[in-house]
Amino acid sequence: MKTIYLDNNATTQVAAEVMEAMLPYFHDYYGNPSSMHSFGGQVGRRIREAHEQMAALLGASPDEIIFTSCGTESDNAAIRSALLTYPDRKHIVTSRVEHPAIRALCAHLATRGYRITEVPVDAEGRLDMEVYRRSLTSDTAIVSLMWANNETGVIFPIEKAAALAREKGILFHTDAVQAVGKVPIDLSRNSVNMLSLSGHKLHAPKGIGVLYVRRGTKFSPFMIGGHQEKGRRGGTENTPSIIGLGMAAELARQKMEDENVRVRRLRDRLENELLARVPSSRVNGDRVQRLPNTSNISFEFVEGEGILLLLDEFKICASSGSACTSGSLQPSHVLRAMGVPFTMAHGSIRFSLSIYNTDEEIDFVIEKVPPIIETLRSMSPYWKQGVGGQTCARNFPGAAEA
Amino acid sequence: MKTIYLDNNATTQVAAEVMEAMLPYFHDYYGNPSSMHSFGGQVGRRIREAHEQMAALLGASPDEIIFTSCGTESDNAAIRSALLTYPDRKHIVTSRVEHPAIRALCAHLATRGYRITEVPVDAEGRLDMEVYRRSLTSDTAIVSLMWANNETGVIFPIEKAAALAREKGILFHTDAVQAVGKVPIDLSRNSVNMLSLSGHKLHAPKGIGVLYVRRGTKFSPFMIGGHQEKGRRGGTENTPSIIGLGMAAELARQKMEDENVRVRRLRDRLENELLARVPSSRVNGDRVQRLPNTSNISFEFVEGEGILLLLDEFKICASSGSACTSGSLQPSHVLRAMGVPFTMAHGSIRFSLSIYNTDEEIDFVIEKVPPIIETLRSMSPYWKQGVGGQTCARNFPGAAEA
Repeated sequence: MKTIYLDNNATTQVAAEVMEAMLPYFHDYYGNPSSMHSFGGQVGRRIREAHEQMAALLGASPDEIIFTSCGTESDNAAIRSALLTYPDRKHIVTSRVEHPAIRALCAHLATRGYRITEVPVDAEGRLDMEVYRRSLTSDTAIVSLMWANNETGVIFPIEKAAALAREKGILFHTDAVQAVGKVPIDLSRNSVNMLSLSGHKLHAPKGIGVLYVRRGTKFSPFMIGGHQEKGRRGGTENTPSIIGLGMAAELARQKMEDENVRVRRLRDRLENELLARVPSSRVNGDRVQRLPNTSNISFEFVEGEGILLLLDEFKICASSGSACTSGSLQPSHVLRAMGVPFTMAHGSIRFSLSIYNTDEEIDFVIEKVPPIIETLRSMSPYWKQGVGGQTCARNFPGAAEA
Repeated sequence: MKTIYLDNNATTQVAAEVMEAMLPYFHDYYGNPSSMHSFGGQVGRRIREAHEQMAALLGASPDEIIFTSCGTESDNAAIRSALLTYPDRKHIVTSRVEHPAIRALCAHLATRGYRITEVPVDAEGRLDMEVYRRSLTSDTAIVSLMWANNETGVIFPIEKAAALAREKGILFHTDAVQAVGKVPIDLSRNSVNMLSLSGHKLHAPKGIGVLYVRRGTKFSPFMIGGHQEKGRRGGTENTPSIIGLGMAAELARQKMEDENVRVRRLRDRLENELLARVPSSRVNGDRVQRLPNTSNISFEFVEGEGILLLLDEFKICASSGSACTSGSLQPSHVLRAMGVPFTMAHGSIRFSLSIYNTDEEIDFVIEKVPPIIETLRSMSPYWKQGVGGQTCARNFPGAAEA
């Protein structure tokens, strides 16, 4: 049985073209690009090319691209830089649905004298622009809002939000880890100051990311050391991965249309068929302003973990919207922020597709999911009490905390 | 003509065994180890194994190993953690010959209210233990001393230095980037609290490193995000590189003897032959307490850059001890700290070998270097004025600043 991988918002397969581009730089052209000898120097040229390839995907200049080790590093670097370059400002604006890289960092900073505003979202996961506008003050050091949500795929109006921040002279950062490669981004047409992305979400390897820093934006390095990345990120360049991410950026530019037409069609078919075949199911998040590859579906009165385990028996990979890893019964902070009823939030599954998925795979998933839900519901006392989505779930796990 | 790579302190070739271990995890087993599905879970097991392999090399426990993106990140993480966990202490002790990852970070911290003591070294690059001992105060948050110097290979008495810090209740960090894999390290027998290493110095790829944190040592994460590495380093695990570095650690354990016998013999032969054949040449740094693979040789009255360019024509890769990349005429901070005369320091070349070097390669280098030095000296007015090492070099570039 072949693995059907519908968990591309967690990580992606490294593209064959990316592997081919990277491979020579491990064992053959392994020189250090900072070296004086031509054996190292030849690698430096390929690193400059990778900056150009990434810049072309983002509508940026090559010198605005800093290669980092991951999206989390880029996020940490952006926020830390803003706090250092605007030392008198003690306020950060973000949202209630950010990735842990921003949420956990802000929670840490809140213990160190910074004030954090988490702008709420509505039931469809859309940012409350009025609260956002009012949250911007002369004490705000930086705004950090994600371009697209990792759990629901909902896209925030980043260009508008960045323009509002700019009007007030406030730095604007976006965690675009889920957006880059899936939706067009043109940084020459907006006022975003800093943008984070991660290679392994767009068919480059794990362990490589980018922080875009707009020319003219003050920047203080997070990782302090040697002169690499024009003095903005110390540490020997991760040459194979940088070259791989450059190639992935080029592929993403070429395949953006496939992502937005064919992948979107696959996703829509999966989603519509599951909603039609499974009673008491719903999509979480705005279905229009959304990534083309992501569908977050709630199956009421079942546990997401149970669904994943049964999917796993068919080698179908997806993920649960709930914070499964921590062992907590709390549903995900994203769905809670959207006010998704807990009987729905607990049974949420994120399907995230890629350009490598096929019609046959989607057919298989459409066939397997409905009986899995039926099996789980047949074992659930809550389902028996609450058939048809009636809210009778006072005893449902997590009800007390929700 | 084959490349003769004698620049292994800058970076190393990824070992074939390491490549083989890594390759399946890019394109085939690319799942996210945090995922609920078994496709991701199987990767998690290999990551735990890599922790065990690295722990075995260092005499540590697997849970004392945190995989990071590079030595620079590990260094930054160690120092930052100490300052956060001992917030009332404002003093850092380090040496004059540290790597830029520590030096540049300390220079930055000096502008933010921290007091830095840089312990001097003697003419052989040996740490002044008396000054070190006196520098430890109740205000000292952390000591950071390198295990072995990247330019000269000189080994500091780290275990003794760590014991002195422990007596005074001060955290001790060592940048062991150049030492790991070249000399035996057993953390179960000393009181080092934190240790940094970098994969690409021991035949693993670039973009992966380790921070060892002794059990019981308070630690505050540098990269804040998800729950990876037991909450001590956010960011999706760089699975292929972690698995590769685990394999490199295992290889290093197996090949330590080769490094210390065969490589040392190659290095000694290279060094002794060059000293014998080239007048006015000398070795920089203690020749006994030294890495087995490193030789830093000064050829008086020539420029290191010139030597490197001519070596490059024979595809011999080495590096210059001077800060060539910055375009400055200043010799390296390490050689200046040792008081190497500037007519010597400018013409210093670091040869750093690996287990992949052969007798034939060393023969070739021994044959090529002496005529290169002769050619350069024949063009140098300073050599003509100062034959035999007389100090007549008032006009030698850099004399004013030296």
